[in-house]
Amino acid sequence: MKVGILTGGGDCPGLNAVIRGIVKSAPKDIEIIGIMHGWKGLITGEVTKLTDDDVEGIHIIGGTILGTSRTNPFKSEENKNKMLENIEKLGLDALIAIGGDDTLSVAAKLSSLGYKVIGVPKTIDNDVSNTDYTFGYHTAVNVGADAIDRLHSTAKSHGRVLFVELMGREAGWITLEAGLAAGAHLILIPEYPMTLEEIVRYVNERMDKKSYMIIAVAEGFKPTDLENVIGDKNEVDAFGHIRLGGIAHYLAEIIKEKTGYDTRSVVLGHLLRGGTPTAFDRILGTRYGVHAMKLVLEKDFGRMVALRGNAIVSIPLEYGIATKKFVPFEYYKLAQIFFG
Amino acid sequence: MKVGILTGGGDCPGLNAVIRGIVKSAPKDIEIIGIMHGWKGLITGEVTKLTDDDVEGIHIIGGTILGTSRTNPFKSEENKNKMLENIEKLGLDALIAIGGDDTLSVAAKLSSLGYKVIGVPKTIDNDVSNTDYTFGYHTAVNVGADAIDRLHSTAKSHGRVLFVELMGREAGWITLEAGLAAGAHLILIPEYPMTLEEIVRYVNERMDKKSYMIIAVAEGFKPTDLENVIGDKNEVDAFGHIRLGGIAHYLAEIIKEKTGYDTRSVVLGHLLRGGTPTAFDRILGTRYGVHAMKLVLEKDFGRMVALRGNAIVSIPLEYGIATKKFVPFEYYKLAQIFFG
Amino acid sequence: MKVGILTGGGDCPGLNAVIRGIVKSAPKDIEIIGIMHGWKGLITGEVTKLTDDDVEGIHIIGGTILGTSRTNPFKSEENKNKMLENIEKLGLDALIAIGGDDTLSVAAKLSSLGYKVIGVPKTIDNDVSNTDYTFGYHTAVNVGADAIDRLHSTAKSHGRVLFVELMGREAGWITLEAGLAAGAHLILIPEYPMTLEEIVRYVNERMDKKSYMIIAVAEGFKPTDLENVIGDKNEVDAFGHIRLGGIAHYLAEIIKEKTGYDTRSVVLGHLLRGGTPTAFDRILGTRYGVHAMKLVLEKDFGRMVALRGNAIVSIPLEYGIATKKFVPFEYYKLAQIFFG
Amino acid sequence: MKVGILTGGGDCPGLNAVIRGIVKSAPKDIEIIGIMHGWKGLITGEVTKLTDDDVEGIHIIGGTILGTSRTNPFKSEENKNKMLENIEKLGLDALIAIGGDDTLSVAAKLSSLGYKVIGVPKTIDNDVSNTDYTFGYHTAVNVGADAIDRLHSTAKSHGRVLFVELMGREAGWITLEAGLAAGAHLILIPEYPMTLEEIVRYVNERMDKKSYMIIAVAEGFKPTDLENVIGDKNEVDAFGHIRLGGIAHYLAEIIKEKTGYDTRSVVLGHLLRGGTPTAFDRILGTRYGVHAMKLVLEKDFGRMVALRGNAIVSIPLEYGIATKKFVPFEYYKLAQIFFG
Repeated sequence: MKVGILTGGGDCPGLNAVIRGIVKSAPKDIEIIGIMHGWKGLITGEVTKLTDDDVEGIHIIGGTILGTSRTNPFKSEENKNKMLENIEKLGLDALIAIGGDDTLSVAAKLSSLGYKVIGVPKTIDNDVSNTDYTFGYHTAVNVGADAIDRLHSTAKSHGRVLFVELMGREAGWITLEAGLAAGAHLILIPEYPMTLEEIVRYVNERMDKKSYMIIAVAEGFKPTDLENVIGDKNEVDAFGHIRLGGIAHYLAEIIKEKTGYDTRSVVLGHLLRGGTPTAFDRILGTRYGVHAMKLVLEKDFGRMVALRGNAIVSIPLEYGIATKKFVPFEYYKLAQIFFG
Repeated sequence: MKVGILTGGGDCPGLNAVIRGIVKSAPKDIEIIGIMHGWKGLITGEVTKLTDDDVEGIHIIGGTILGTSRTNPFKSEENKNKMLENIEKLGLDALIAIGGDDTLSVAAKLSSLGYKVIGVPKTIDNDVSNTDYTFGYHTAVNVGADAIDRLHSTAKSHGRVLFVELMGREAGWITLEAGLAAGAHLILIPEYPMTLEEIVRYVNERMDKKSYMIIAVAEGFKPTDLENVIGDKNEVDAFGHIRLGGIAHYLAEIIKEKTGYDTRSVVLGHLLRGGTPTAFDRILGTRYGVHAMKLVLEKDFGRMVALRGNAIVSIPLEYGIATKKFVPFEYYKLAQIFFG
Repeated sequence: MKVGILTGGGDCPGLNAVIRGIVKSAPKDIEIIGIMHGWKGLITGEVTKLTDDDVEGIHIIGGTILGTSRTNPFKSEENKNKMLENIEKLGLDALIAIGGDDTLSVAAKLSSLGYKVIGVPKTIDNDVSNTDYTFGYHTAVNVGADAIDRLHSTAKSHGRVLFVELMGREAGWITLEAGLAAGAHLILIPEYPMTLEEIVRYVNERMDKKSYMIIAVAEGFKPTDLENVIGDKNEVDAFGHIRLGGIAHYLAEIIKEKTGYDTRSVVLGHLLRGGTPTAFDRILGTRYGVHAMKLVLEKDFGRMVALRGNAIVSIPLEYGIATKKFVPFEYYKLAQIFFG
Repeated sequence: MKVGILTGGGDCPGLNAVIRGIVKSAPKDIEIIGIMHGWKGLITGEVTKLTDDDVEGIHIIGGTILGTSRTNPFKSEENKNKMLENIEKLGLDALIAIGGDDTLSVAAKLSSLGYKVIGVPKTIDNDVSNTDYTFGYHTAVNVGADAIDRLHSTAKSHGRVLFVELMGREAGWITLEAGLAAGAHLILIPEYPMTLEEIVRYVNERMDKKSYMIIAVAEGFKPTDLENVIGDKNEVDAFGHIRLGGIAHYLAEIIKEKTGYDTRSVVLGHLLRGGTPTAFDRILGTRYGVHAMKLVLEKDFGRMVALRGNAIVSIPLEYGIATKKFVPFEYYKLAQIFFG
């Protein structure tokens, strides 16, 4: 029996733990084929055999030994056909796809065409429905919280308002939890927009009281009364997102203008998605990998692994990609207790 | 309204987050009284008022600003009476007790006497039933995994068998998950004893193949065919636990003798329970604290907060202390996949 | 005897260690006066007494408990007079100024007016002449190297060229050493400009060979054939420095255009100058503080403390601020060995 | 031209950086031969060719890719002859030996026999004369200081006296600087023995004032009035060093008995010498490696690389191993300022 694995989409700490979990838990008579660069590798046929030795110790390393891409083979008839040919040619009896929305949509489509597919959800943003957590997310929150911890002292020594931008285009999980963990004095996420006026009020209140302030802001946050970006309107893109330097830079400028306080901004960006995973994410990735192989052995295809409390379970592949999981209002209200 | 808080038992990262969560989420008309050194402070009457300013930024700091002790006031009639008098004298309308088995047993007893008590479970060992995780546990696992990560290179460079001892007298959670996360080549926990012979077999197999080995062992692990400790039988205490230097030292000696390999041991001990909590534990502690105060406001007494999946819930106080949560066999089997 | 201390200029890990070193090593009959917010506090008279208890454990914390500012009292006759009056009024017998170029220039001027002043050099950039290292620098290099370590896996998984921008307007020390430590494949610093063409050549060579690349670039680096910034010339400031998003963003855009490779940029900025200092910086700060107080007791004024090999020495105050210490060509050549 | 490299003695973070520095800076016409397991590999002839690809990214990893041992080929005529034969057979034109006292003594002997040898000093203990620092030392100090940072909170919460044992049999550098950096309240090192009575006095003073205490103690520290170890005299070895559990366990027992305070001990041991090196040590190792190859190219044999201030220099091989560098009294006095 031959099982293919691929990793698609953005980088996420824990991908290698999943790969190692699959390979190490496979019975000796199963051959594991690593498909390079996500779905792209199934189009080009670039693959590599994976043995126990190949995955020794990799769960500690960030990134993915298989490489990744954002290629969607269903976008062209030609690529689709090449993919299907390669699945045939490689003699793949089953396929485990590790990835986010895009990667798993392809997996679901293949599954609906009768292919034997298992999905492993991957999103740094933690916005997959029907699973408590996705691997990589805790690492991102930890790195984010560590960074904000570091910024406190500078903001305090200089009496500044400091904006820290974290990942999160639509879902604010990373920003919310890193901000909550590191004691940000205001947290701005896409789910709960605020006016500039409200932000100004928070800033004035905090600065009056404590003379320094850390504001965690998700890249996808947008003030409801977004003003012209300083200098050039073009810097807001088609979706209304702030371009060139991001929302943190924009807010730092506009809030300085409106309050007179000394402001600065820091954009954490890709820092959050690389590097060695936390113990939690290594374990979650490992368990996902082992469970995915278990589903293969049990011939329980068309499913996605998920975390429920302490247990790894599986759900239909479509459920994971059906809807996004956003920060519930209840949780944002809890964070608000610590604003100011 | 006056609410008392106390922290009892061993140190655990996240205690301060709970305290801050309680204080910050209390309505302005509620006075929070910090009781010093666990139940001892209720006997001696040593207390301190807690305001928002007192808890600013403390969730990042290990330990507990209230101090702790292992005092059980029900062990003497005199102390019990002093405690009840002080509850009266201080005018406490409710009491939030943060602690482990011992602390919460006292809380449950007080509750059964009609006092208004809320419990917050605390155990570095993660062995409380009816909650997915307790705060502090993830920090311990992270610190443990980081330490094991560090030890790999030395063991490898010297071709050694290295025993790392982690906390866990009865439940092996920390050892299992730190060992799993850091790629230990054998994990020994109290729940699943092994003979020395089996350990020797694992050692010989791994050393033949890879020439170095890391073994994570919980302090409470005991080989089923425990031999006389080298030099002195007295070093095994009344419960059969290895004294003076611990099980790791013992195993390093005996395995060296039996296999001829160069062995070493490291005991992580208190390192695992101190210091700044991970983001996960800061957040869990914070949410526990906020929920405990919510239960007070809702007058839902005699209950303990708990984590279920992503949600904070509450359960009857007795449930949490009724039984211990041990590592299930299913999970130990998963870890075994990565042995060798 | 009364000794004043102040901290001026940008934040730098280790400032609190210096303050603690001074206070703890002062004989009991010396009163230490903390002047708030650098020279500004001597103008406004905002001061605080500092005792052993005030400095307990602060050497572990980033920032400065005295606050800081960039105020230069010699810039206005009025402020200068207020400062001199306050020195008189406070009865300061000596003054220890901890700061960079600007702060120490004021100190040197005061010294030349006959005031008893000691300087402690502070620069995150390590560009003070006549001292081997300044505190805070090693912390910045460590944080920078850790960040670059994290970025490797993402760059590798995606096959990208990643530009990381670190501090350093004129001197490239932080970028050079963080880049060298973390294995950047090209390091760009202000001292050794390069043409865009050369950078393109490095990128093509590396990408041909290894398919991913990390480039560490100092904020003050400027390609010698700087092209129009994409979209808007105004984004180059009066000194030719790239504005809005920094040089890393600029290079990422232009190199993508010229090579076709997928590029990204990360700006570390203030992350590097905050947070808990490394052991090295805590010790260096502590030793500087102790030595500064020793100079006060020996009445050896008008001097600045410095590190030479393992020894703390002192040099005339003017020497430290006379010239900047740049990365010597010899050292940049060593770094070049590891390019590509 | 063929150049051999070997690494001998105990593990030390930065060894791989030296190896990479040598390999990457070698001109293309020089063949680098990695000798496995220190001098042992020259006896057995176990070697491996080292190319640029073999050393890609290894400077970030602890340990040594060449393995190590404590074999001294001059201890037997047979081994000596095998070594000399292998040097001949392998056609080694020069040899770079990276190691401590023992390794470099062999190198010096070979050099005195006319072989072309370069030494790179390696000691985690920083006790090599004629060099400011050795690589690995800063990593050990950092890991030690981080561990002590973690222990503060537990000691404080429980009102305990906590003994932390760090490496250092004869020289107390690691203990002194980790203790100084992390704010230990008493530091005990081999160079400056104390009586138990003095230790008791320090403990009582500190506990009266602050109710908790951290004591950093080097493994080689011995109270001048060493009492019988509890239970068994045999636990003091031939050199008077405490066996089984170490000096920290001993002191914890005896001080508890004498003061009545609750004491605990933690032994950091091998934790300090493994794992990824700090940026400082990666750079120092890299510069050592590059300089060693430079000496080879300049045919300046019989020398050892060393750090002086910011510069890498070389000294006669014998100088480095002639005398040990101990903590000078001046420096211990500085540390004393912060006791209590």
